[in-house]
Amino acid sequence: MHKLVLIRHGQSQWNLENRFTGWADVDLTEQGIAEAREAGRLLTEAGFRFDLAHTSVLKRAVRTLWHVQDAMDQMWLPVHTDWRLNERHYGALTGLNKAETAARYGDEQVHIWRRSYDTPPPAMEPQDNTFAADPRYADLDPSLVPLTECLKDTVARVLPYWHETLAPTVKAGRSVVVAAHGNSMRALVKYLDGISDDDIAGVNIPNGVPLVYEFDADMKPITHYYLGDAEALKAKMQAVANQGKAKG
Amino acid sequence: MHKLVLIRHGQSQWNLENRFTGWADVDLTEQGIAEAREAGRLLTEAGFRFDLAHTSVLKRAVRTLWHVQDAMDQMWLPVHTDWRLNERHYGALTGLNKAETAARYGDEQVHIWRRSYDTPPPAMEPQDNTFAADPRYADLDPSLVPLTECLKDTVARVLPYWHETLAPTVKAGRSVVVAAHGNSMRALVKYLDGISDDDIAGVNIPNGVPLVYEFDADMKPITHYYLGDAEALKAKMQAVANQGKAKG
Repeated sequence: MHKLVLIRHGQSQWNLENRFTGWADVDLTEQGIAEAREAGRLLTEAGFRFDLAHTSVLKRAVRTLWHVQDAMDQMWLPVHTDWRLNERHYGALTGLNKAETAARYGDEQVHIWRRSYDTPPPAMEPQDNTFAADPRYADLDPSLVPLTECLKDTVARVLPYWHETLAPTVKAGRSVVVAAHGNSMRALVKYLDGISDDDIAGVNIPNGVPLVYEFDADMKPITHYYLGDAEALKAKMQAVANQGKAKG
Repeated sequence: MHKLVLIRHGQSQWNLENRFTGWADVDLTEQGIAEAREAGRLLTEAGFRFDLAHTSVLKRAVRTLWHVQDAMDQMWLPVHTDWRLNERHYGALTGLNKAETAARYGDEQVHIWRRSYDTPPPAMEPQDNTFAADPRYADLDPSLVPLTECLKDTVARVLPYWHETLAPTVKAGRSVVVAAHGNSMRALVKYLDGISDDDIAGVNIPNGVPLVYEFDADMKPITHYYLGDAEALKAKMQAVANQGKAKG
């Protein structure tokens, strides 16, 4: 039986401030660091040992992975960084407060921007898209750096990484951990579990909790489960679902 | 002009305790972390930006690199870990205090074990060589995991990494940083600067100070220099040279 562990990064500064983050390179909070270390502890306790790791080119995911590696005493692991595991690009909403945006445009509109499968948020103006000139995207054709993404767009760039890189490695018997983001994980989970375009709206990935997938010999998913306390997990998922609502 | 930056890890717990470390996976001290962060600051100040990084499979080098990356805001860098960049295997001396060993065997004998080019320290007993079963060396034939190494042995495993991996990458115009160890760096420096088997004994690499090599188009070294304060550097090098002496 093959296994793969996915971990959404721990709480970031903009998770805390309830702002749309996307490709902005925001760091973890102290709570986020504690969540990452707890993830490493849970994985160790459950007997996991990894052969290699994958993460995005965003520091909240990289630092989460570093703390997991440190807590597991596996700092020597080969680590592959790839933009395809990045968070969904949030377009012109990048940096805006989710509750303020909901107060201005309505809960319904923000819910569409957050959870619609194929409606992207308003695009970033090209001159605001500083990511196009960032050296970490130097190997990407600048015209391919998005100005916004809906989840469907994220699926379209995550799945090649799954098919070409992750799945063959797991199938070959290697033990792999992936530190990624809410929407790059939702993109992968949608594919793995055959979730419909409508139903994926109700899937919320908690910060910093290891999500274990088990596969048969043909890489067909058999089951998946989160490690750790079930009640705490439920509260974390609900908190993610509530982020797009106007307050008061 | 091509450049390569080498950094010996910051002070480790066993540097502080003046113990032979070799392949033992000892972590950095607080001072070692501060040295690593300072190295990152100096590199940023000098205008360095890297495309990728290499380090050993030992946490004192990995953590040094992580702090350099963090201080330079380059956490997204691809990082290659390889046992060929490990510290020299210290054989049966691993874990022993250098001054106590000198008091017992004499300064002269310890100087030979520390600095002779081709006399290895006494070999570790095979049953003590837990590294052979360590997953980080799983890709290595167990018979190839050394029981001790002289510097000549270290040169023999570092140079293939230079010729096959580092040199071609630097020659291709990539900006590369390597976080390594006193003796894996001495092995490389000996080759790059054509230092004789005798003269390499006098070369001491300070902890946590960026060492910059500049090469011509054919990867012939033109010059090399350390970043940072010259007086502090001199004191650090002298401290390394003094480690193998009996006290009092």
